[in-house]
Amino acid sequence: MRSYSGERLCGKCFTRSIENKVRATIARYDMFKPSDNIMVAVSGGKDSVTLLHILAKIEREFPKARLCAVTVDEGIRGYRDEALKFAAENCRKLGVKHVVTSFRHLFGVELDELVTRLRELSRQNLEGLSPCAYCGVLRRRALNLIARKSKVDKLVLAHNLDDEAQTILLNIMHGDAPRIARVKPVLEEKHRLFVPRVKPFYEVPEKEIAFYAYLKKIEFQSVPCPYASTALRSDIRTMLNRLEERHAGTKFTVLKAIEKIRPALETVAQETILQECTLCGEPSVGEVCKPCQMLQQLGIQ
Amino acid sequence: MRSYSGERLCGKCFTRSIENKVRATIARYDMFKPSDNIMVAVSGGKDSVTLLHILAKIEREFPKARLCAVTVDEGIRGYRDEALKFAAENCRKLGVKHVVTSFRHLFGVELDELVTRLRELSRQNLEGLSPCAYCGVLRRRALNLIARKSKVDKLVLAHNLDDEAQTILLNIMHGDAPRIARVKPVLEEKHRLFVPRVKPFYEVPEKEIAFYAYLKKIEFQSVPCPYASTALRSDIRTMLNRLEERHAGTKFTVLKAIEKIRPALETVAQETILQECTLCGEPSVGEVCKPCQMLQQLGIQ
Repeated sequence: MRSYSGERLCGKCFTRSIENKVRATIARYDMFKPSDNIMVAVSGGKDSVTLLHILAKIEREFPKARLCAVTVDEGIRGYRDEALKFAAENCRKLGVKHVVTSFRHLFGVELDELVTRLRELSRQNLEGLSPCAYCGVLRRRALNLIARKSKVDKLVLAHNLDDEAQTILLNIMHGDAPRIARVKPVLEEKHRLFVPRVKPFYEVPEKEIAFYAYLKKIEFQSVPCPYASTALRSDIRTMLNRLEERHAGTKFTVLKAIEKIRPALETVAQETILQECTLCGEPSVGEVCKPCQMLQQLGIQ
Repeated sequence: MRSYSGERLCGKCFTRSIENKVRATIARYDMFKPSDNIMVAVSGGKDSVTLLHILAKIEREFPKARLCAVTVDEGIRGYRDEALKFAAENCRKLGVKHVVTSFRHLFGVELDELVTRLRELSRQNLEGLSPCAYCGVLRRRALNLIARKSKVDKLVLAHNLDDEAQTILLNIMHGDAPRIARVKPVLEEKHRLFVPRVKPFYEVPEKEIAFYAYLKKIEFQSVPCPYASTALRSDIRTMLNRLEERHAGTKFTVLKAIEKIRPALETVAQETILQECTLCGEPSVGEVCKPCQMLQQLGIQ
């Protein structure tokens, strides 16, 4: 079953091994304190719903810790509305408080409208990135806003080993190697307005999460986002899966390789000083933060 | 023809464009001085023979420069002996002095014997890397020894864009990310015993070199080395070629991405101080250099 370790486990031992892997990851990277107020970003998809299940189980061992979930409704008709139901239903089953926020509420615009606007701009031959680039920036902002407002200590992301290995190669193939320094299990920005983000699935392969969800009969949304068009990422995923099949352990090795050079990359990146955006007051690299820049470019802000 | 730039050139314009690319690479990275004594490492394969042709042409414009070629005979029966003929024949045609040295002469052992010894060791369950790992270390040492002995100013390697992009990903997938700092067009080690190495094909895709060789009717050895077993590199090659087909320019972007983080990696790597090997006197990271370690491990030195 696990070709990188040669293990063969029964269903019970397998699910326990995943839970223990998550426990070990949390401990190794010192992700939580026993009294932390924890918020899990739950999209409604396989990874985040499964992580919520595992964390809800672990949390029972820590009576002083608190756990809640958040879903950001980007406003993607026929997709996010359905995912939201899965997120809500799983929270209800687990007895976890579920917070819902939306692009509409926070930024006054839904992703569907934003994409329409983007397509108009690209017809006018104006610059425009893929919908995913806008969605990613705004979703990260939304999560930080809601986490801060909810006074949580840690925001939990369900990024898994595959995601992280893909992101590393994607950054290199996009020519943005310095960004690989940001692929790490705990993200703590040097600004008081940022809520630290942690990734308990950092070392767990996507395939094992899928198998855990299957064994535990966890229900989640499996339809992909209609805007998902990151052709390069999906090619890198295919390629990494092929390499992993032929050279077991490749994804993990990629992660570990980057860990060796991360300190060097961070030393250089330290020059970046975060200030507060002159428009919204949120942390920003330049005078105007990326989300405000994007909303302005689209004529929304 | 060139999907990354959309250019379509006739044969004459194409070969000229490759020659000019090599000229531009030499100038950009300040590879040569007009009076340099230059030695090209020629294996007899497509890349090195083609580079020799182009450099011989360029050299005619620099009367003070001197050009010679070197072939290292590793001692691979049925393979290197044939490659040597191609190397010699091309040198003769171009009127370039051809130096030949061998593992037998320099290290007292041929690669064929070394591989036999490696296989014996692996039967005894002792550690042993692939033949390529040994061959690479010894060949680099051989080239440096012969270049120094021949009093050349620059040793030229025919590594192309594909090789370099593959090496970057290979280092990451081998978990040795710090090594990617060494993927660069000019390698100048901080030790007086090292001859600087330059790569005029650093930015030239393999496919274009092949097409240049085809148009110019250059003859070279096309049989692969019988020991070539670097499964991971060949998988990475396939994968990079697929990505390049679908996302033109990927290989070049990988190279440029690494250039951005190289200074950071080098800052950290600078701690490595080269000393002289206590056995052979050649530059070494530790007390005993890598070639001596390998020869000792195999019971040869």
